[in-house]
Amino acid sequence: MDLKSIWNNYEKLINEEVKVNGWVRNHRPQKEFGFIDFSDGTTFKHLQIVYNKDLKDFDKITSLKNGSALNVVGTLKKSEGKNQEIELVAKEITLLGDCPMDYPLQPKRHTKEFLRSIAYLRPRANLYQAIFRIRSVASMAIHEYFQNNGYVYFHAPIITASDCEGAGEMFQVTTLPLDKVKKIDYKNDFFGKKAGLTVSGQLQAETFAMAFSKVYTFGPTFRAENSNTKVHASEFWMIEPEIVFCDLDELMNIEEEFLKYIVKDVLEKCHDELEFLEKFQEPGLIKKLEDLINSKFTRITHEEVITLLKNANEKWEFEPNYGEDIAKEHEKYLTNYFNGPVFITNWPKDIKAFYMKQNDDGKTVAAVDLIVPSAGELMGGSQREEDYQKLKSRMDELKMDEEAMYWYLNLRRYGTCVHSGFGMGFERLLIYLTGVDNIRDVIAYPRTPNNCEF
Amino acid sequence: MDLKSIWNNYEKLINEEVKVNGWVRNHRPQKEFGFIDFSDGTTFKHLQIVYNKDLKDFDKITSLKNGSALNVVGTLKKSEGKNQEIELVAKEITLLGDCPMDYPLQPKRHTKEFLRSIAYLRPRANLYQAIFRIRSVASMAIHEYFQNNGYVYFHAPIITASDCEGAGEMFQVTTLPLDKVKKIDYKNDFFGKKAGLTVSGQLQAETFAMAFSKVYTFGPTFRAENSNTKVHASEFWMIEPEIVFCDLDELMNIEEEFLKYIVKDVLEKCHDELEFLEKFQEPGLIKKLEDLINSKFTRITHEEVITLLKNANEKWEFEPNYGEDIAKEHEKYLTNYFNGPVFITNWPKDIKAFYMKQNDDGKTVAAVDLIVPSAGELMGGSQREEDYQKLKSRMDELKMDEEAMYWYLNLRRYGTCVHSGFGMGFERLLIYLTGVDNIRDVIAYPRTPNNCEF
Repeated sequence: MDLKSIWNNYEKLINEEVKVNGWVRNHRPQKEFGFIDFSDGTTFKHLQIVYNKDLKDFDKITSLKNGSALNVVGTLKKSEGKNQEIELVAKEITLLGDCPMDYPLQPKRHTKEFLRSIAYLRPRANLYQAIFRIRSVASMAIHEYFQNNGYVYFHAPIITASDCEGAGEMFQVTTLPLDKVKKIDYKNDFFGKKAGLTVSGQLQAETFAMAFSKVYTFGPTFRAENSNTKVHASEFWMIEPEIVFCDLDELMNIEEEFLKYIVKDVLEKCHDELEFLEKFQEPGLIKKLEDLINSKFTRITHEEVITLLKNANEKWEFEPNYGEDIAKEHEKYLTNYFNGPVFITNWPKDIKAFYMKQNDDGKTVAAVDLIVPSAGELMGGSQREEDYQKLKSRMDELKMDEEAMYWYLNLRRYGTCVHSGFGMGFERLLIYLTGVDNIRDVIAYPRTPNNCEF
Repeated sequence: MDLKSIWNNYEKLINEEVKVNGWVRNHRPQKEFGFIDFSDGTTFKHLQIVYNKDLKDFDKITSLKNGSALNVVGTLKKSEGKNQEIELVAKEITLLGDCPMDYPLQPKRHTKEFLRSIAYLRPRANLYQAIFRIRSVASMAIHEYFQNNGYVYFHAPIITASDCEGAGEMFQVTTLPLDKVKKIDYKNDFFGKKAGLTVSGQLQAETFAMAFSKVYTFGPTFRAENSNTKVHASEFWMIEPEIVFCDLDELMNIEEEFLKYIVKDVLEKCHDELEFLEKFQEPGLIKKLEDLINSKFTRITHEEVITLLKNANEKWEFEPNYGEDIAKEHEKYLTNYFNGPVFITNWPKDIKAFYMKQNDDGKTVAAVDLIVPSAGELMGGSQREEDYQKLKSRMDELKMDEEAMYWYLNLRRYGTCVHSGFGMGFERLLIYLTGVDNIRDVIAYPRTPNNCEF
């Protein structure tokens, strides 16, 4: 029986015999008895195993080491201890897999840096048990939200020959024998041309939105930027929904509903994990998440934001400017000012992507960024330019390769319509949900400059 | 209102006014009235729009072209036609996005080859509406099965520095400026070493199984093999569960339950799509899937299979052999012979992967392949070798780089236990579910040698 089933039904199981498999997380042997802190990873909660010297092999059992795999048969009892409801009084303990004394994951406080160096063992530690279960639960919540609302899951291509969005530096993908080849000729490469890893599946997702009305991607994307920050990774997962017959206002409704759905689901399903994270990572984490669910997201234009920032009685490190992006300090001020998440709309077109719908003022685009308390920007979206001529003019201005993008432009020739979409970096969401501040701690095996271990 | 909502509630909506957005799939204008075959992609079913010359702009409406985007306001009526239950009697039809006469996707029979060349438009065609909705529904069924059964979703790394499994040729990933660089020095590459695209997330998934008991991957994997067949793509999605305290027999139970769950879910949710596919792609498709659900999968060893094949009264193109893999013709014979899916267990170790559990006979490993009627091999799994010495010896024999694999070997030092897992190529499953015979038709934007379009 797994520990999750036991914890879910323990009142019925009191005084019943159960059999469990799992690992020793901590062991406190005494002269006449002993306690084993036991986990199988199916639930955040451990199970305390109690044994005494009536057990055959008592001496062997007292020497069981942390990290060992055991099979335990025993009777479930109400616990006399303060911190747990139940314990398993062992009748038989069998060692399945031993663990040496030099096991790196001893039950003491390790730094996150050290734990990254043993990333193949760290999911056994409480912190990563919490983080990676939340990662799994949040993934499922994302799928549920979209599937329940009639979206089709679209698998965007990972390898691509077009750096369409210009969203970031691309990794190149090749099968040319680089160590031998003298002169690079992409005609001889696997795809007969230069290819790389996608930075976004949005443009392809739009092609499917024009067929299914509502689609979403949820897959890995890549950026080859040489930036070593706490919030950038070279490989990360993105969610990119595209919705037709949907304008910017409706898009904001969807973003708000979507985010609240995920947060609510994680609050419901990961209570133990969040309590742990609140205690050790971010005080007030649970309240932050509950507040989000109950808040009404503010909607304000970029221009209004700049005016508000300029009029604020604050010394800015970066002076707010009508033509420019806003800084971290501004985001923080805004979420404090409005006491909750803020949608900032209608951004200057020159700092936003070519495909965003051009507003009638000739200066702004129908873009929207969502900023949330403590995490800053969480989603970026826009209405897409559905007018062929306007889109083409913008691409001309930016000297983009229109020939390679004929298919994207053609969407505006063949039954074009108002449509919108947004993107959310999944790891940004996880940083927000877990209170952990480094993206390397919410990715199983993070890839960053000069780091590609395991 | 979207078409899915209308079809789900049409009895309540009869004689109500509704407003729909979507595209003209076919248009038959007459002198005094006209019919528009209308779709918004939210359901496989189209909606017939009827209009007559009382409508303002009647003349303009009669010239509406296939592919155009419309907004239609009208009254839902019981249809007098034979082939549909309802129709929308239009009160107002507004053209949102025109479509020129040279629109490539006209309502006539196109070859799949041609449709691949317009892959950005083909999801609007019935066949791909069916395939890609099934792809989405099957994806969700996979997540549901695992999440409902306590598995943690594990995102395996895509970029990797170790070709661990040796499962196939790898793509290389680089940021070196190949056009300029004279001598390749991987110290200067993005990760400071040679890196490539994963061929399997299994080995990393095992590290998480040792922490969470049950995990699964569902993500893209890559093979750089230069093979142009109907069932190989360079980029495809794989599902790879890993389960601890689980032996080969239990693994087969899981595989069987898992596959039946997906098939049942698709049968329930995609009835219209399957009926279409049965009609145009694979006669008997629905019965094939229903039979699978109701069948008990046969379990037989590789040795028994070879004996059975040798004793069969058949002329084989490839002679069955105790030390070798079996051929397509053998798979077909076996699924016919047993009238259903067949698990073949205990394969010769020399034709299987290094990590598979070595049986006591010294010759075979605890591997299992699942073959199913019409599609052949659908899943491959095994118990994993949990014994450190045995695994190391096998890696020695195969001259593998044990230094790079220290973390995988260490799983057998730190609380090792019996564990098992399997892999399923998602597109193989889709070929089986849809009756389509070419992998290029179940992937939105397929990548194959010399082909990386869109």
